[in-house]
Amino acid sequence: MSGRTFNVAIAGATGAVGEVMIELLEERNFPVKNLRLLASERSKGRRLKFRGEEIPVEVLTKDSFSGIDIALFSAGASRSREFAPAAVDAGAVVVDNSSAFRMDPDVPLVVPEINADAIGNHKGIIANPNCTTIITIMPLKPLHDYGRVKRVVASSYQAVSGAGAKAMEELRKQVEDFVAGRDLKIEVFPKQIAFNLIPRIDTVQDNFYTREEMKMVNETRKIMGDDSIRITCTTVRVPVFRAHAISVNVETEKKISREKAMELIDAFPGCTVMDDPANDVYPDPLFASGKDDCYVGRIREDESIENGINYWVVGDQLRKGAALNAIQIAEVLIEKYL
Amino acid sequence: MSGRTFNVAIAGATGAVGEVMIELLEERNFPVKNLRLLASERSKGRRLKFRGEEIPVEVLTKDSFSGIDIALFSAGASRSREFAPAAVDAGAVVVDNSSAFRMDPDVPLVVPEINADAIGNHKGIIANPNCTTIITIMPLKPLHDYGRVKRVVASSYQAVSGAGAKAMEELRKQVEDFVAGRDLKIEVFPKQIAFNLIPRIDTVQDNFYTREEMKMVNETRKIMGDDSIRITCTTVRVPVFRAHAISVNVETEKKISREKAMELIDAFPGCTVMDDPANDVYPDPLFASGKDDCYVGRIREDESIENGINYWVVGDQLRKGAALNAIQIAEVLIEKYL
Repeated sequence: MSGRTFNVAIAGATGAVGEVMIELLEERNFPVKNLRLLASERSKGRRLKFRGEEIPVEVLTKDSFSGIDIALFSAGASRSREFAPAAVDAGAVVVDNSSAFRMDPDVPLVVPEINADAIGNHKGIIANPNCTTIITIMPLKPLHDYGRVKRVVASSYQAVSGAGAKAMEELRKQVEDFVAGRDLKIEVFPKQIAFNLIPRIDTVQDNFYTREEMKMVNETRKIMGDDSIRITCTTVRVPVFRAHAISVNVETEKKISREKAMELIDAFPGCTVMDDPANDVYPDPLFASGKDDCYVGRIREDESIENGINYWVVGDQLRKGAALNAIQIAEVLIEKYL
Repeated sequence: MSGRTFNVAIAGATGAVGEVMIELLEERNFPVKNLRLLASERSKGRRLKFRGEEIPVEVLTKDSFSGIDIALFSAGASRSREFAPAAVDAGAVVVDNSSAFRMDPDVPLVVPEINADAIGNHKGIIANPNCTTIITIMPLKPLHDYGRVKRVVASSYQAVSGAGAKAMEELRKQVEDFVAGRDLKIEVFPKQIAFNLIPRIDTVQDNFYTREEMKMVNETRKIMGDDSIRITCTTVRVPVFRAHAISVNVETEKKISREKAMELIDAFPGCTVMDDPANDVYPDPLFASGKDDCYVGRIREDESIENGINYWVVGDQLRKGAALNAIQIAEVLIEKYL
C-alpha cells in the first residue's frame, strides 16, 4: 500500500454496523487520510471517536462525497439507492452493505475469501452480501471446491443486531422489564423477542419465503458463481445480541468425511474449526461476538444421504456479517485496484 | 370410562414435568381415585396441591407402588430403570417419560395421535418419546400418510425446561444477574444460556451426533413404524423457557403442495396451522407455552428438490413434549385396556 492514504466516508455512521466500521478502520490500520461520518438529520451534532479524535457527524446528502475515495454505506437499502449513485458520480467507489444492488448484474457481490477477483469488475459499486449468507457460506466454499455442493438446507439462529441498534436496545429493555416485573414493550420486532423466537425476518414473498431466506438462495449462487447449487432455508430471530448461528446440511457430489471437512474448513481463511463436542468445544454466539472469524463445529457426516455433511457455524453479525466484510472488500480494492 | 377410578402414582412429582402432570390430571378430569406423589429424599416433607387437597410427597422406593394402577414416571432414566420394574411387579402399568426403555422392542413408544394402537402390546411399561421428537413428528405423520416421507432434515430450538426446573431457574437467574451487572453463574448448562445458544444437548456418541439427535432418528422410525425414513438433525438449546421449536425440511415420495400440507396438518388431531407470515401469523414459543397443541407455520414448498416441504413447529415442551403425551397414553390405556 506504500504509504498511500484515502479519504473515506461512512454513510450510516451512527448505526450498529457504522460504529463497528469506525472501530475496524482504526483496529486494522486502514490507510485513512480523512474520515467523513454521515448519517440522517437525527444524528446531527453527535461526535464519534476515531484515532483519538472526535469527528462530527454530518448529514448525508448528495453533496457529501466530494473528494471521497471510498464510501462505505450501511444506512439501509433506500438510502443506498438514493445516495450511492451520487457518491459514484463524485468519484468514490462505494462498498454497500444494503440489499439495494446485490443482485444487479453490474455490481460484484463479494466475500473476499471466496470471490475477491470479482472486485475488479466493479463499475463504482461493490455490494456486501447479507450477513447470514456470508456466515453460512464461509465454510461452504472449501467444501464446494473439494466436493461440489449440490444442495444446502439451512436453518438460522439470528442475533438481534441484524435488525440494528434499536433492536439490540429492545432486547435489553425487555429483559430489564421482565426482571423488574413490568410489562414488556414491543416496538422494533413484531413480537416479544426476549425468551422467544421469531421465525420471520424481512418481508414475505409470493412463494411464502421471506426476503431474508431468498437472499441466502440468490446471493449464495452469485457469490459462489454457480447457479446449480440448490438451497432452501428458514431464517429465525433469536434472543442473542450480536452473533448469528446457522445449522447447515450439505449434500455434495463427492463424499467428504468428517475429518476431511474439518481439515478443509480449518484451512480456509477466516474459518476456525472448534469441534470436540464431548468436551464442550463448539462455537456459541457469546464466544464469537467481537471476533473476526467464522467458527465452525458439530461437523458430522449425514448418514441420511450418500454424501452429506452437517455443520454449525457462528459468526459476529456486525463484523464478518457486515462491517468487517465491507472493509476487507475496501482493503482488496485499495491494494489491487485504486 | 363409566365411573371407574384409578390409583395413580407420579414418580418425579416435584420436577418440572411432574408438576405439569399433576396440573393436567386435574385439568383433564383424569379419573384419579388416589394420587401418590413420589420423589427423591430431597423433596420429602413437601406438599403439592391436587384438587384443592395438599398431598405429601413420599420418598420413591421399590415399595411405593402397592395398590397403584398407573405409575407415571418422570424422574430420569436411571430411576426409571431402578424403580419401574418394581411398579410393574406391584401390578401397575408404567408410563415412562425417560429414555430408559424407549428403544426396547418389548416396550411400545407412543404418541397417541400417531400410534395409539401400540399401547395394546405393552408388557407393563409404555414409553413416552423424547420431547423434541414428539413435537417434530406431530405434523410429519399426516404428511407421511399422504405422501410418504423419504427424508427429514431438522434443526431444533429447544427451551431450557427440557433440562428441568433447575435449568429454568438458571436462565432466570442469569438474566437477573445480567440486568444487575453481576457475574453470571453457570451451573446446569455447560455454557451461559442467557443471550446464547448451546449446540449440544445430552452426551456425544461415537458418530459425533448427540444422544438427543439420535433419539430423533431412532424414535421417529419406531413411532412411525417405518425404518425406511431417513433423518438427520442438529439439536440446539436456546434461551427460551418452555416451548420447543423445530425447523423441519421434508422430502416426500409424492408431491405435496403448500395448500395440501396446510390442510393435512390442520386436520390432524393435536396440530393447529398458523400460517400467514405477512401478517405475522406464525407460531412462537411464548404463544405455545402452556397450550396443548403443536402449532405449525412457515409451511412452504421446497424448490430445491422435486417433492419438498419446509415447516416450523412449536410445542410446549412440558405439555405435549412430556406430561400431556404421557397422560394421553394413560387415557387410552384406561379407556381401552384397563
